[in-house]
Amino acid sequence: MYIHQVAAYLPAHVITNEHFTRLNGLSHEWIIERTGIRERRKAATGENTNTMAIEAAQRVLAAAPLCPTDTIDLIVGATYTPHDTIYTLAHAVQRAIGVADIPVVSISSACSSLLNAIEIVEGYFAMGKASRALVIVSEHNTAYNNEQDTVAGHLWGDGSAGLILSKERLAPTDLRVLDLITAGAGGIGKADTAVTLTPVAKGIVMPHGKDVFIHACQYMARVTQQILERNNLTVADLNWLIPHQANLRITRNVLQALGLPEERAVSNIDRLGNTGCAGAAIALAEKLDQIQPGERVAVTVFGGGYSYGAMLLER
Amino acid sequence: MYIHQVAAYLPAHVITNEHFTRLNGLSHEWIIERTGIRERRKAATGENTNTMAIEAAQRVLAAAPLCPTDTIDLIVGATYTPHDTIYTLAHAVQRAIGVADIPVVSISSACSSLLNAIEIVEGYFAMGKASRALVIVSEHNTAYNNEQDTVAGHLWGDGSAGLILSKERLAPTDLRVLDLITAGAGGIGKADTAVTLTPVAKGIVMPHGKDVFIHACQYMARVTQQILERNNLTVADLNWLIPHQANLRITRNVLQALGLPEERAVSNIDRLGNTGCAGAAIALAEKLDQIQPGERVAVTVFGGGYSYGAMLLER
Repeated sequence: MYIHQVAAYLPAHVITNEHFTRLNGLSHEWIIERTGIRERRKAATGENTNTMAIEAAQRVLAAAPLCPTDTIDLIVGATYTPHDTIYTLAHAVQRAIGVADIPVVSISSACSSLLNAIEIVEGYFAMGKASRALVIVSEHNTAYNNEQDTVAGHLWGDGSAGLILSKERLAPTDLRVLDLITAGAGGIGKADTAVTLTPVAKGIVMPHGKDVFIHACQYMARVTQQILERNNLTVADLNWLIPHQANLRITRNVLQALGLPEERAVSNIDRLGNTGCAGAAIALAEKLDQIQPGERVAVTVFGGGYSYGAMLLER
Repeated sequence: MYIHQVAAYLPAHVITNEHFTRLNGLSHEWIIERTGIRERRKAATGENTNTMAIEAAQRVLAAAPLCPTDTIDLIVGATYTPHDTIYTLAHAVQRAIGVADIPVVSISSACSSLLNAIEIVEGYFAMGKASRALVIVSEHNTAYNNEQDTVAGHLWGDGSAGLILSKERLAPTDLRVLDLITAGAGGIGKADTAVTLTPVAKGIVMPHGKDVFIHACQYMARVTQQILERNNLTVADLNWLIPHQANLRITRNVLQALGLPEERAVSNIDRLGNTGCAGAAIALAEKLDQIQPGERVAVTVFGGGYSYGAMLLER
């Protein structure tokens, strides 16, 4: 399986930390120190998870002349901030790009859904039921976020990304997926209450951020080690690490646990905040052109609920 | 791939048509004539998509002594009425049954998600990444439904079901999955507006029920025919048809299009209303013990958004 192309979409409107200083009295320095976040994007009125998904899909297809739209034979969408749970983002993308009668599904495994979506694609490729898939990750956190929440209101940003995956190599620059691990950890710690999004009751809240923090650090480091080991590689063989973009302190903690220098990490948390399951995909889109032939990339994710995973790529 | 066991969970509280007569002036006879629905279940206070999913999981595992819980190596949940999009129903089930470090994901392809979930399992089996999966479908429609809505408020019911799927046959009574088709039809008709569930804006609404009705009838008949043909079978080889439980008129329309007598259809719409993606699975659970060796069952679904699918089973 190969990643042929990746593209991101970010809403234009920038929300700086000063917005939260005015709202809640949280200082720029305090937010930076705790999270590394300087600013984040906010979807405009009329934008939502589905419209951002369509933007990402159109961008990635436009960037992939070797993969005409009518050859796409599977769409997997991912979000934990749905605009519509019936006309899901995957269905909206199908309607927008105009491909009929192919498997279409949207998923959530919270912030780790990117890798679940890619693993589902891997399954369709293995069955022979698809060979060119569109994976779209899209989060409209601000639709469910309470900005007044001094615990987590300043963390979230909006954004989306699209990936074209193919069973066979389409171009020499394609990233080969060497290996992929996903797993739930719903039984661990405060997985059931630490960070939740109950659409009916209260939107997104994070009453036990410390529990999320500790497990995110542990699991992302551990699963990266695991995927390297089972491919007879070490961290020395890794050129880039793309962790879930939740918090710069988590990223630093994971780097330290793995013994990787900070310049090996790909990060957009300072500019985008936590864009949920889109964060790592946006980072891959931003880094894509700088990955040199022969270089290896590990993507590792952790999601509320909990879930975790790792993917090993080679250009 | 085999379906080893199926079990359903239904909340105890029954809502009769008289409830809507009192609320909206809709008569029992009018509701029956339009939908075939006599009553539906409503989750109690404290029950939700996750708790109902756990009930279904525990019931199906209790009914499957040949499949100990610790052999489950994949959980796929499905709902369009999520209690929590981060701590999803699949994560809640993982926590409840106590299996660690296995792939866990929740999906939505609206009312057709049962077949998408089973197809995702088929992919994991094909990759060799799982061999015994738990599929849980759970809908808490009443959490998002406006009972006052005279167009569709009386249609929805709550319920859940669990299925154990295995790569190899576990028992002589297992249902073999002969074939499975899923597809999105997001580009068709009024797929983007006909029936939607926008959690933030207005819950579940169905402003274009006729568009849903027409396409549900067409697609469920067509995909059933398609799956029979590509397996060199005809409707004469079919003992039971389990359609998505949306409306008794849709079921009758599909039967007529296929040329099947009404007694071949498995139906619970009169007792349960539209229980979303759980409906066909609950029907399979209710029918399970009556399916004779050698008999064939077609499950066919249609979901808002739109999506459709068919699955062919043989005992």
